[in-house]
Amino acid sequence: MNLQSARTQLFEIIFGTQTRAGRYYDISLIIAILLSVVVVVIDSVEGFNSEFESVLWSLEWGFTLLFTAEYLLRLWISPKPLAYARSFFGVVDLLAVLPSYLALLVAGAQYLLLIRLLRVLRIFRVLKLVRYLGEANVLIRSLVQSKRKILVFFLSVGVLIVLFGALMFAIEGPEHGFTSIPISIYWAVVTLTTVGYGDISPQTPLGQAVAALVMLTGYAILAVPTGIVTAELSTEILRQRSLTRCTQCERGGHEADAEFCKFCGSELPEPLIKDNPHS
Amino acid sequence: MNLQSARTQLFEIIFGTQTRAGRYYDISLIIAILLSVVVVVIDSVEGFNSEFESVLWSLEWGFTLLFTAEYLLRLWISPKPLAYARSFFGVVDLLAVLPSYLALLVAGAQYLLLIRLLRVLRIFRVLKLVRYLGEANVLIRSLVQSKRKILVFFLSVGVLIVLFGALMFAIEGPEHGFTSIPISIYWAVVTLTTVGYGDISPQTPLGQAVAALVMLTGYAILAVPTGIVTAELSTEILRQRSLTRCTQCERGGHEADAEFCKFCGSELPEPLIKDNPHS
Amino acid sequence: MNLQSARTQLFEIIFGTQTRAGRYYDISLIIAILLSVVVVVIDSVEGFNSEFESVLWSLEWGFTLLFTAEYLLRLWISPKPLAYARSFFGVVDLLAVLPSYLALLVAGAQYLLLIRLLRVLRIFRVLKLVRYLGEANVLIRSLVQSKRKILVFFLSVGVLIVLFGALMFAIEGPEHGFTSIPISIYWAVVTLTTVGYGDISPQTPLGQAVAALVMLTGYAILAVPTGIVTAELSTEILRQRSLTRCTQCERGGHEADAEFCKFCGSELPEPLIKDNPHS
Amino acid sequence: MNLQSARTQLFEIIFGTQTRAGRYYDISLIIAILLSVVVVVIDSVEGFNSEFESVLWSLEWGFTLLFTAEYLLRLWISPKPLAYARSFFGVVDLLAVLPSYLALLVAGAQYLLLIRLLRVLRIFRVLKLVRYLGEANVLIRSLVQSKRKILVFFLSVGVLIVLFGALMFAIEGPEHGFTSIPISIYWAVVTLTTVGYGDISPQTPLGQAVAALVMLTGYAILAVPTGIVTAELSTEILRQRSLTRCTQCERGGHEADAEFCKFCGSELPEPLIKDNPHS
Repeated sequence: MNLQSARTQLFEIIFGTQTRAGRYYDISLIIAILLSVVVVVIDSVEGFNSEFESVLWSLEWGFTLLFTAEYLLRLWISPKPLAYARSFFGVVDLLAVLPSYLALLVAGAQYLLLIRLLRVLRIFRVLKLVRYLGEANVLIRSLVQSKRKILVFFLSVGVLIVLFGALMFAIEGPEHGFTSIPISIYWAVVTLTTVGYGDISPQTPLGQAVAALVMLTGYAILAVPTGIVTAELSTEILRQRSLTRCTQCERGGHEADAEFCKFCGSELPEPLIKDNPHS
Repeated sequence: MNLQSARTQLFEIIFGTQTRAGRYYDISLIIAILLSVVVVVIDSVEGFNSEFESVLWSLEWGFTLLFTAEYLLRLWISPKPLAYARSFFGVVDLLAVLPSYLALLVAGAQYLLLIRLLRVLRIFRVLKLVRYLGEANVLIRSLVQSKRKILVFFLSVGVLIVLFGALMFAIEGPEHGFTSIPISIYWAVVTLTTVGYGDISPQTPLGQAVAALVMLTGYAILAVPTGIVTAELSTEILRQRSLTRCTQCERGGHEADAEFCKFCGSELPEPLIKDNPHS
Repeated sequence: MNLQSARTQLFEIIFGTQTRAGRYYDISLIIAILLSVVVVVIDSVEGFNSEFESVLWSLEWGFTLLFTAEYLLRLWISPKPLAYARSFFGVVDLLAVLPSYLALLVAGAQYLLLIRLLRVLRIFRVLKLVRYLGEANVLIRSLVQSKRKILVFFLSVGVLIVLFGALMFAIEGPEHGFTSIPISIYWAVVTLTTVGYGDISPQTPLGQAVAALVMLTGYAILAVPTGIVTAELSTEILRQRSLTRCTQCERGGHEADAEFCKFCGSELPEPLIKDNPHS
Repeated sequence: MNLQSARTQLFEIIFGTQTRAGRYYDISLIIAILLSVVVVVIDSVEGFNSEFESVLWSLEWGFTLLFTAEYLLRLWISPKPLAYARSFFGVVDLLAVLPSYLALLVAGAQYLLLIRLLRVLRIFRVLKLVRYLGEANVLIRSLVQSKRKILVFFLSVGVLIVLFGALMFAIEGPEHGFTSIPISIYWAVVTLTTVGYGDISPQTPLGQAVAALVMLTGYAILAVPTGIVTAELSTEILRQRSLTRCTQCERGGHEADAEFCKFCGSELPEPLIKDNPHS
């Protein structure tokens, strides 16, 4: 029974965000994740990794063992271990430690170790903290809301890119770096998105004229996704505002940052954060 | 009569989108179009095309014959074959197959074969599927609505580009890559749209100062088309919302994703999709 | 008296836009302006100008004499010739022809000839045509309305650019291309506006980290001018809408493209275009 | 007593903005600041600094002594000298002069001298002038209002950049310039923000495909911060409008540029500018 109560308490701390201990746990976890990511990133720098080999090795195994212990703990305290193991963060938690063990068995598995960087995804657990979840939800709902318009937009951009790429392949040809249609399409993406590496650039007057057209197109149509997201976001913010209701006078329409009811002055309830333990 | 009924049924499947068979047909067609585009694109890659020459040749002719058959079928089942043949997609359907046959007659017509890539335009038939048409219409109507403002904007940008180009030609001159006014105008487009290839870049202090001004101008005025499209799109979305009306209580103002009337709870009608068979 | 009536009629045609002859005149003028600009631009292309020297010379003098005649005509028919000569377009009209005559007197005045490109500004006379004036006014009024916010924004961007430039000069130093603070400030403009020529790019890890910060700053703060212009433009469009009033029922709030009153169905009046002859 | 009244009067001029003398003082100060910044910037140009060494030296010491005198004056006339010395602008005022004196004591302290460029921050005092403070406040409040959404956005961008960077390191590897994960992350920032230097660019087909994905992502998600800022700014502008109230009829909702009440025609009060002397 004592064990059972410990499990419940640990569940509150590790999966929950409401208790003070739970918040400290989340913050510590985020710091550990960031440090372990820095270790993996630094480990890839030539010269640096040979000089501090043993330090980096120790740190990496320290984090691996820590995250392994945490993974097993989560499996143990979870009421539905299988549901956790199959959830998005459950898989990420496993992928965060597995490559280190596999690298012991398989020789030369250095690219495998990069999978450890998926640890960085665990940082989204931070969004469960305080009120960030609501903000993220507004963003995500706006994007979901406008997904069809964005799809239509990207379909059009895709068709434009293929046609412009093929046109430039015909105009400029292999002697100016446009060696094939795939390369020309790559150039069209680089140009339309206004990145402009300059590794491939048109040389003929006609090619430069078409390139100028591609640039102006890319410059102008950027307005379209921006317009879509802005329009949806404005609607979503307005909708969000009307969701919070005063518990005293039951009136809504409060601004997102309001802490007191503007009609009767009583404190407003916290915005609802549905605490889904397995996500 | 049997033939006539088969024609009518085929018309429903090939031009229509309401029947299940029609949807399957559209999806199969889109997959065939995408694959045939990939074949044309890959065919341009040096080395790749010589190694898989016969495979690519077979695939290409397979798609050509398939699209030819489909084109003839569409002509046959269409109640007004000439109207179809003259419609935008009718011409695209023809251009999708014609180059392959012409290449048999004319030698060295490899650039002609690029016309086959116009097949990619046929993908817009997909927009007839489900509810995407409505979304595309909102986008297109917003752009049409704001076309005068966008024209005024591009006229101003065009004048700016010509004047900045000529100024840089005078300042930098041919010895720094600004060999003529057309090239300088090309540079001005590359810079104002924030593409920045770097193939031509100012070398003199005065030229760099003017270039910085061009960049800041381009950076700032991007706000103008975005503002135009966003403002029109917000209006258009609001207008769209008020178009759908509940069939029970006849009240409008429902949100775009609403499936039930917010006043009486009865199911809302599907948004109107006018099925124009020849577009 | 006959002469006086001819002057009045010519004034209507040349300065006005309401008569059919006036519109034809404006359109012909715009075509002549565009052609003369193309001649100046092409004249700067090495090889091209030597081959077609006499053709280009004849065309240029043709346009110069035409525009001179038009300038003198405008002076003659204008009720206040001095007011016209001193107005913005009066000065542009003079600058459009003066350089060609000066080049006859002064030898090697080739840069002087570039001033002829100011002719391109005359194209804004086209905005007096049809309804484009209203659209341009909405844009201009939105920009004027938000000019203080935009000034505050650019002041902040200017301070950021100077500080980032100086910081990179200290970090990277002359050996990596950051030879002086002005050059480093130029680099900061190139990077913050996301142009990115690549002629100067950071080489040290610390420099690359600061550069990444500059890029992310430039990427994020682009949202600010866009937000300013969009917000003002939305307000301005709404205001514009409420300006047009039905002459029958005197109710306003009509949409920008409405041609009939939505309350009583009678035709709406044309939006007011104040015809200022000297601008 | 005479001295005390002089202090009060000077306080009005130097810290205040309401009197005419105070405005002239602020404008003169801004000109001095800009000139001194230009001197520091020019002083870094090789060749230029050796030729005009004595002029630049004299100018720099002139500005240093001027700013020192002003700093001491501000300390003397301030009612709470310590509060001023500790305030943001108090520290900036000190950092604007300190490096010049330190450079006399410490040899080779040329990087120290760059700190003098922080003088440019003093330009924000100009915002206290006229009505710019209100505009800056609208901008700042909008950004503060949306800070959580922007944080969520940048967290997501950060995670994307790390993952894309590591992926490109695995795909392209050191032989194509992607020498380590930090460098690959730097490349991901350069590409996602659409800067695109071109100093590092993908060479393999797979790398170019992933790069195209990064570019399209960066191009599309730019819509998100823009949407956030625009939505908040629109709300903030509306809120600002309702803040100004007519002193006659006590009705609000006036537009930002309104000078007369739209209900009773009496002059509207100046928008409130709280004059905080130490900021």
